[in-house]
Amino acid sequence: MRRAAYEMTSEEEIGSFLSEMSYGTLAMRGEEWPYAVPINYVYHEGSVYLHGSKVGHKMDAIRESGNVAFSVSKEYAIVPSYFSDPKLACPATAYFKSVLIRGRIVPVEDPAEKAEALGALMRKLQPEGGYDPIDPADPAYKPRLEGVAVLRLDAVSTTAKFAFGQHLNDARFEQVCGGLKRRGAEADLETAGLMERYSGRCPFD
Amino acid sequence: MRRAAYEMTSEEEIGSFLSEMSYGTLAMRGEEWPYAVPINYVYHEGSVYLHGSKVGHKMDAIRESGNVAFSVSKEYAIVPSYFSDPKLACPATAYFKSVLIRGRIVPVEDPAEKAEALGALMRKLQPEGGYDPIDPADPAYKPRLEGVAVLRLDAVSTTAKFAFGQHLNDARFEQVCGGLKRRGAEADLETAGLMERYSGRCPFD
Repeated sequence: MRRAAYEMTSEEEIGSFLSEMSYGTLAMRGEEWPYAVPINYVYHEGSVYLHGSKVGHKMDAIRESGNVAFSVSKEYAIVPSYFSDPKLACPATAYFKSVLIRGRIVPVEDPAEKAEALGALMRKLQPEGGYDPIDPADPAYKPRLEGVAVLRLDAVSTTAKFAFGQHLNDARFEQVCGGLKRRGAEADLETAGLMERYSGRCPFD
Repeated sequence: MRRAAYEMTSEEEIGSFLSEMSYGTLAMRGEEWPYAVPINYVYHEGSVYLHGSKVGHKMDAIRESGNVAFSVSKEYAIVPSYFSDPKLACPATAYFKSVLIRGRIVPVEDPAEKAEALGALMRKLQPEGGYDPIDPADPAYKPRLEGVAVLRLDAVSTTAKFAFGQHLNDARFEQVCGGLKRRGAEADLETAGLMERYSGRCPFD
């Protein structure tokens, strides 16, 4: 069974990928030009949370329009053309996972929700701990929580593209998957495994 | 001498980073919602070139507005709070390089410029060769060149943020830089080196 790259969008797959990655690119419409910045995030209870300074380009652009796109991506392997074509450059490509969330950015004002989101971000990026729990009643944290901007992305649409050669015919699929296995770097073997997983094909079984 | 993160924007530093990275995130204004996708690119003769299908969401969004932002970023290290504070989570951060190019996307129609851009992309992503040179007069390439969209980003502004603790006072700088060196992963040592390079400080000399 073959499935299209865009069909790999089970909530579980997307949530797992969003939990694995540490940062995404926040795209804003801006006034004349769009604005885009990399930013750490946490995917917590179904929402992406961001944080940052209360002033600056990002906050200016968000005030311009809170309608944003948030893109999280990971490139797994560059696939050279010669895996499947001895002459033409055209089959050269890259295999990747990409999730795009579009929605409205909402500033979080409630100290409890701010602390909760920042706590989740810390558990993600610093799972080994080594800090006092973020408690809005703690006098050391209180002014800092007030001073930081926490933003929640209320998603309107979430789409994913996991591109691992699902569209290739069986002959090309075998050539690319076999090429990755022969090249044999750790990322190549992982990519070959994802090719098989997301296409439902096991060419070498 | 300390320099701000935003001052690390010599054309040479930016060009070197853009040549090193394989993909960026293209942000478009869209109709109601911005649209953002990861995409391979080549930085060639001072311009970013992209390519892709002539149809699809990306081309639709570009027709909506050719004013785009292109963000290329790399996260070097997650910096845990306890490197510089035994109690508070607040100093937790990430060090990264980020370049933002804003400008107009222009479809390239000239077959020679298309072939030139795609040739540069191939030399970047497949430096080992293994394909016939992309020649617009080659009958095998001609129809394929006509069928693919090549886009040139004519930059209006290019900014860079290389964030490696330049703003830290000397005590914190030593704690973080020393923490990375003790943690000692390859990326940590590279990050510590970039902290020293971009701040002009060598705390352990």
